[in-house]
Amino acid sequence: MEKNILLTIEYDGTGFCGWQKQPGKRSVQGEIERALGIVCGQEIKVDGASRTDAGVHAYGQRANFAGDLKIPADRIAIAANNILSGGKSSSSAGGDVRITAAEEKPMGFHARFDAKAKKYVYKIRNESTADVFGRNYAYHVARPLNVKAMEDAAGQIAGTKDFKCFQAAGGEEKKTTVRTVYSLRITGARDIQIEIIGDAFLYNMVRIIAGTLVEVGLGKLHPLALAPIIESRDRQNAGHTAPPQGLFLAEVYYNIDYLGGFYGQTGLG
Amino acid sequence: MEKNILLTIEYDGTGFCGWQKQPGKRSVQGEIERALGIVCGQEIKVDGASRTDAGVHAYGQRANFAGDLKIPADRIAIAANNILSGGKSSSSAGGDVRITAAEEKPMGFHARFDAKAKKYVYKIRNESTADVFGRNYAYHVARPLNVKAMEDAAGQIAGTKDFKCFQAAGGEEKKTTVRTVYSLRITGARDIQIEIIGDAFLYNMVRIIAGTLVEVGLGKLHPLALAPIIESRDRQNAGHTAPPQGLFLAEVYYNIDYLGGFYGQTGLG
Repeated sequence: MEKNILLTIEYDGTGFCGWQKQPGKRSVQGEIERALGIVCGQEIKVDGASRTDAGVHAYGQRANFAGDLKIPADRIAIAANNILSGGKSSSSAGGDVRITAAEEKPMGFHARFDAKAKKYVYKIRNESTADVFGRNYAYHVARPLNVKAMEDAAGQIAGTKDFKCFQAAGGEEKKTTVRTVYSLRITGARDIQIEIIGDAFLYNMVRIIAGTLVEVGLGKLHPLALAPIIESRDRQNAGHTAPPQGLFLAEVYYNIDYLGGFYGQTGLG
Repeated sequence: MEKNILLTIEYDGTGFCGWQKQPGKRSVQGEIERALGIVCGQEIKVDGASRTDAGVHAYGQRANFAGDLKIPADRIAIAANNILSGGKSSSSAGGDVRITAAEEKPMGFHARFDAKAKKYVYKIRNESTADVFGRNYAYHVARPLNVKAMEDAAGQIAGTKDFKCFQAAGGEEKKTTVRTVYSLRITGARDIQIEIIGDAFLYNMVRIIAGTLVEVGLGKLHPLALAPIIESRDRQNAGHTAPPQGLFLAEVYYNIDYLGGFYGQTGLG
């Protein structure tokens, strides 16, 4: 019987060319499709909710696939993870991607098109010396950041706006550069996290926002400069693109009502 | 002027064949010697306090080298780290080894021969599901561990004993297998740490102790079995060798008096 399965996927992006399949390279999509092909006994094509770049991580990527499946949904994750883990006590190879959940959805459901919102987390390590263990999981900023200034700047970002200034060249052509940022929170001191929830994101938008906030934290940009930068719709006025290894796709939301209950106070309800 | 420099070195062992140089492979020693060679303008040969295996990490490895050096000791770390870091926002390549300190020592001083004691930490992640981000930095044990039983077992290890049962084949031939374990502490629950301080360690000794304690935690070995296992001097009676990625060389001690002040209560003073 034809089934449509929605997967939740966690990965360390360090060893991948990104989510999307590329010839001759190791992609998350490619690894997932390879494992599912073996488990389901047929060629599988998955659609991911977000096409994360090389080095970008995910706690909660989502992807769906359809097929005439004999195996029950709840067995798919276990069987595929067996293949993905590569073997015990392997070090760098394998074990860097894992399916954390698999559930059946109605046939028309699509992981990307039906996504109502996404949450990304951008991690910064603010310390004079680099951390060899954290180098692939945070943006190391050696000079002290003024987190209060970064918070003041962040306050001007949330809302439904034209965010063209935060769009990098090279992505898919979009009909509009208007997006809604539901919330943007900054927490921590030495380990700073920028948490951002939005309906959809432009190419490299979260990394450019992170880079711009870092420049505010370093005193290169005034905290109140964010509103005019956004209004200018000019990429040149925003800050640098923060490196990929600080970025984590945290969650994909399919139910706005559910979100409203949790995030109503941030304007999402 | 001929100088003898003692380095403190931190590394993520994932991308290395181990501390020691091996032809055609990327070793920590090799990377350090390459960077120091450039910084000091001459061929440099470093002696490490511990020859850690592939995948084993270090917070506080020590190594010394001598040379007719024009550069002051305190500039060596900064200059070498510039080379070792490889370049900004690099992901997997480079940045996985860093010199955290460099100090001048008398000419006869030797990082390995003058070491009085070492501290290793062995990390276990005890959770039913694997963690993609922790896979290279802990031993994943899926079934629940009885930490109390592991503590009871650990209590029988400390002391000056013949630890032949915890020696793997393949290491350097040693004159004696008698070693002193000054202290062995187990902390944590989901993230379990085994902290062990000893005067010197046999080949794979910490990993075999960790594997044996895991078997106690799983109920495969009785907590009181440790004393007779040690007495038997037979590797077959001890548990498995826990994988390398859980092991961290935490500290090398050169001054016993200093240690006595901190660890006198554990029998070291």
